Amino acid sequence: MARRTKDRILEVSLAMFNAQGEPNVTTNHIADELEISPGNLYYHFRNKENIVEHIFARFEARMDQALLVPDNRLPTLEDVWLQLHMVFECMWDYRFLYRDLVDILSRNRKLRAHFARILARAGASTRDVLTGLAQAGIVRATADEIRATAENVLLVTTFWLNFNAVRASGDLHKIAPSQEDLTHGIYQVMLLIAPFLRDAERVHLNTLAQAYRR
Amino acid sequence: MARRTKDRILEVSLAMFNAQGEPNVTTNHIADELEISPGNLYYHFRNKENIVEHIFARFEARMDQALLVPDNRLPTLEDVWLQLHMVFECMWDYRFLYRDLVDILSRNRKLRAHFARILARAGASTRDVLTGLAQAGIVRATADEIRATAENVLLVTTFWLNFNAVRASGDLHKIAPSQEDLTHGIYQVMLLIAPFLRDAERVHLNTLAQAYRR
Repeated sequence: MARRTKDRILEVSLAMFNAQGEPNVTTNHIADELEISPGNLYYHFRNKENIVEHIFARFEARMDQALLVPDNRLPTLEDVWLQLHMVFECMWDYRFLYRDLVDILSRNRKLRAHFARILARAGASTRDVLTGLAQAGIVRATADEIRATAENVLLVTTFWLNFNAVRASGDLHKIAPSQEDLTHGIYQVMLLIAPFLRDAERVHLNTLAQAYRR
Repeated sequence: MARRTKDRILEVSLAMFNAQGEPNVTTNHIADELEISPGNLYYHFRNKENIVEHIFARFEARMDQALLVPDNRLPTLEDVWLQLHMVFECMWDYRFLYRDLVDILSRNRKLRAHFARILARAGASTRDVLTGLAQAGIVRATADEIRATAENVLLVTTFWLNFNAVRASGDLHKIAPSQEDLTHGIYQVMLLIAPFLRDAERVHLNTLAQAYRR
């Protein structure tokens, strides 16, 4: 029963953070929403930061899964689409984190170290996939271009939600990203890779990408 | 004399915001640094937000200049380098703004509207330059690729400082970006354009870019 309450607190907190922005949600709001006493909530979690840390651990495990690449064969373009979908869906499910990324990381040294580690893993995974695509003859790029492109893939992915927010000029914390924003983000990342493709694959990808462009 | 004090307040505030992060600087700190009374400071500016707004106006005027493109001839690759340098130098001089971008914009509707307008202008300018390069036969890209690449150029530029901060895992507000980080940023943006260049220009640019890569 205690186990269930703990999980429910994490689930409801995540939903509230995503809907309202993490800075705008207090432990009292969370307890109210769950119809439990603040004391019951504090029995499971020291404070809000402790809840954020538990949610972050789930996010990290999920992102680790999304970043796995096939290691027994060369990657294909379909692998890239699939991986991007998994990464963007993970970001979507934990979008509160990306919306206030600098804020949340700047106050918590532990999360900062973990996030830097996730970025390092994502960078290595992206470089591996691009190198594999080059080995398979699907892309044509120098080692420098692969390194720089992998960095741009990481940057565009990580700040996609913030970019959408700052150019919208509305209330940054009230703008909820839409599924369409994510689809558009996947398209933007694919377009980082597209120009390195052989002509046939580039035309094919541009056709596929139509479905992703808004 | 009053004019001079007003200017000095803006200059010292900008320097302190850049060095310490805007959230960590109060009007009392600024008055102390200038060796004037808080009353004297409030004679010129209502509050810190009012100082931030005045500094932002200077930033916006400077960025407008940086975004001007030659309109009497087709652009060259040298124009792109020059424009990127001016934009990144402007970002560097007002780096406090980029470091806490979402934070600063989320509390001020006016700055939010102005920043969205700057991004819209920068997007139009980037699309014009890329379209001009295509007309001049320097790049080979479809209209969709130009639109998507312009968006990625904007995103990578705007969040370059934040990206450097979140992957460094140190104290986000204590990490001052270095000139080297900016040079690396210009390189990353050029590499967004590089794959669309004709082979000769691509090799030339990759050679030039060596100087920019760290």
